[in-house]
Amino acid sequence: MNAIRVGIVGYGNVGRATAALTDANAHEIERQVGCPVQVTLVSRRSAVAAHSLFPSIRYEQDWRQVVTSPEVDIVVESMGGTEAAREVVLEALHRGKPVVTANKNLLAKFGHEIQAAAISSGVPVGIEAAVAGGIPLLRAIRDGMAADRLTAVYGILNGTTNYILSQMEKSAVSFDDALREAQRAGYAESNPTSDIDGIDTRDKLCILARLAFDGWVSESAIHTEGIRSITSVDIDYAHKIECTIRLVGYASMNSDGIELSVRPWLVSRHSMLGKVEGVNNAVFLEGERIGRQMFYGPGAGPDATATAVVADLVEIGTAMTRGSQCAKRLKGFDEEKPLVLSAGSRPVGWYLRLTVKDRPGILARVAQCLADHNINIDAVLQMPNMAKDKLSFVVTVETISESRIRKVVEQVDHFEFLLSPVVLLRISS
Amino acid sequence: MNAIRVGIVGYGNVGRATAALTDANAHEIERQVGCPVQVTLVSRRSAVAAHSLFPSIRYEQDWRQVVTSPEVDIVVESMGGTEAAREVVLEALHRGKPVVTANKNLLAKFGHEIQAAAISSGVPVGIEAAVAGGIPLLRAIRDGMAADRLTAVYGILNGTTNYILSQMEKSAVSFDDALREAQRAGYAESNPTSDIDGIDTRDKLCILARLAFDGWVSESAIHTEGIRSITSVDIDYAHKIECTIRLVGYASMNSDGIELSVRPWLVSRHSMLGKVEGVNNAVFLEGERIGRQMFYGPGAGPDATATAVVADLVEIGTAMTRGSQCAKRLKGFDEEKPLVLSAGSRPVGWYLRLTVKDRPGILARVAQCLADHNINIDAVLQMPNMAKDKLSFVVTVETISESRIRKVVEQVDHFEFLLSPVVLLRISS
Repeated sequence: MNAIRVGIVGYGNVGRATAALTDANAHEIERQVGCPVQVTLVSRRSAVAAHSLFPSIRYEQDWRQVVTSPEVDIVVESMGGTEAAREVVLEALHRGKPVVTANKNLLAKFGHEIQAAAISSGVPVGIEAAVAGGIPLLRAIRDGMAADRLTAVYGILNGTTNYILSQMEKSAVSFDDALREAQRAGYAESNPTSDIDGIDTRDKLCILARLAFDGWVSESAIHTEGIRSITSVDIDYAHKIECTIRLVGYASMNSDGIELSVRPWLVSRHSMLGKVEGVNNAVFLEGERIGRQMFYGPGAGPDATATAVVADLVEIGTAMTRGSQCAKRLKGFDEEKPLVLSAGSRPVGWYLRLTVKDRPGILARVAQCLADHNINIDAVLQMPNMAKDKLSFVVTVETISESRIRKVVEQVDHFEFLLSPVVLLRISS
Repeated sequence: MNAIRVGIVGYGNVGRATAALTDANAHEIERQVGCPVQVTLVSRRSAVAAHSLFPSIRYEQDWRQVVTSPEVDIVVESMGGTEAAREVVLEALHRGKPVVTANKNLLAKFGHEIQAAAISSGVPVGIEAAVAGGIPLLRAIRDGMAADRLTAVYGILNGTTNYILSQMEKSAVSFDDALREAQRAGYAESNPTSDIDGIDTRDKLCILARLAFDGWVSESAIHTEGIRSITSVDIDYAHKIECTIRLVGYASMNSDGIELSVRPWLVSRHSMLGKVEGVNNAVFLEGERIGRQMFYGPGAGPDATATAVVADLVEIGTAMTRGSQCAKRLKGFDEEKPLVLSAGSRPVGWYLRLTVKDRPGILARVAQCLADHNINIDAVLQMPNMAKDKLSFVVTVETISESRIRKVVEQVDHFEFLLSPVVLLRISS
């Protein structure tokens, strides 16, 4: 093979970082792969600045020119979105071209179609960049854990929400101010819904759960809450009990199946999760034999993402030069082999924050409601001198299942003194 | 291929765990590899209990019977030591049989010979289990970082010393008591030299540095200190400044080459390194584009080690069934391509603990000595009411190079009031 030629569809930040890295590291990549790896063709809907194109790279506006070109052996999809990206990836695979993609939304939603097309064409799909940026986490699950049964995978999967929560704690700012700051710093998009409502975390968790437990789960089956309801009152109360708040994607094997959720957790400030600040990710893997491992690092950013894209290009390229089939099946991406989902959840502790118009008897009503459900209160926190017309207090309860605490929350949400729905956080054990 | 047959030389804890895991996970391993992987033959100098042999496994006393057997396709070396193990590995490679080994001492000392033999025979050597137990760290460096230049690799690489230091802090016991406890718990050997003098950490760091920086370094070139000199006085003083003590293997790219050392560090109790307790390992990788990543988990134990051994068996087996050459060169194991070592070290802060027979003027002499070397004192700690005939106090100094602080230590070590040599710890920035 003279050279492996790469076409990049979607020449934005990640696309450009991929081309720059392939160029900067050409010598080392060639040594590993056994022949040069060159970006030859890129496409983008809007025009591309000439200075971002290396001499060897040609630009096309239409992605079809890249995917169908005889000068392209591997297609990198870095355009984002799910509609056009799906067409790009499926078309490339149908033409027998391996694909590398960082698109977690696409993989969460259409991963089964992509897997089917890849198998039918016998070509590989590289997805390392889709979760946890440059951390080689998917490889760790696929190769490193080949010999163990995983029992849980969970952690902080979204850098934007982690940045916002860290800022709320560190600088005592409101959610809105922290969000605006994240947007100014380029960590949050102008439409931040996907991050702050937990969608991004959900899609990544969905990919992780499929790989770890080798079974299909639809992203829409995952209970998902974001961080919009978290206020500085929660951060303050958390602080008082040496805790902080983190958005956690959680997948765990229960006796009756896999439990999945995305929601804010109350975690000890001194725990590993509590130590993860800013745009970093931290993912725990638990297995029967490996124990509990954690992978930590920057979860996003064009450079980190590009290292994962290029690592996939190196793996696929190496298999091509050696003439071996490297079309490793993506574990868990076969829609006909679904995961068995758990009907319930493990018993854990819960944090309930109530915002009320104060008057005598409120705590008694709430405490009675918990007593009626046979639930033990662990702690009650109410700061002094709060405004009577909008007073927040917190109750934490001992470990019970989610369905039981939900019943309480449902009742409490109907109490006439409540000004807004109860904020419910899982307490990390 | 009907089946891939594995011979295990050294049927101790790791060997048995490997056989048990290969058996327990046979179905999944077969699915990944494309044919069954079976342990057929094992050897051990001393007799093997019948119940530890699965029906398909034959036992031989002499390792040559395993390595030369036509019924063995891959050899697992889990006997430990460097002399016989070297013979085993080289003999297997000369016979064209791939080898999987967890033997860090062997790889540190004779890795270049093993690499040369593997290349000449065109067969792979799997070494994932040699560092950080079940954490797929070497794979992360080899594959995941294929597209980045690493600038540093460092961390806690030895579970035994970390257990001892954690216990000294948690239970306020002496070094000797903590060591005895570690021995009782099975975490330390009856001859603990290799662990507590830093040899084990050194050998692992040596392997990591070769892989990360792609160049040969002899293990004897690494400045190595263990934790024998750490007393509960150090743990107490560390505690007073919100710190704790960890044994750290450190390799970093300076402007003039690679800096390497194994020594105890003073780390913040609230840092990631400070949070690593018990027999866990934590390894940081820093790269130009990936930023700073951390890999954390149990660093030893037969089960965790066996998962890494079997992951290597799966990788090698998969390449065998696909008929592809998977003899990936072990980066950095070519003796003729040495690493350039840094002449000096980065400036960092230092902790000096002095144990003296008290009398007036001691602190003045020490302070004057630091002033003569133009070194700024950061903090002085002396607890009240200590015995005058054996008093310990601590001085921390601002960031300077190791050579400069060494000159001070050399002078202070000659002061007539000093009862034992200065204990010098690097302060984590």
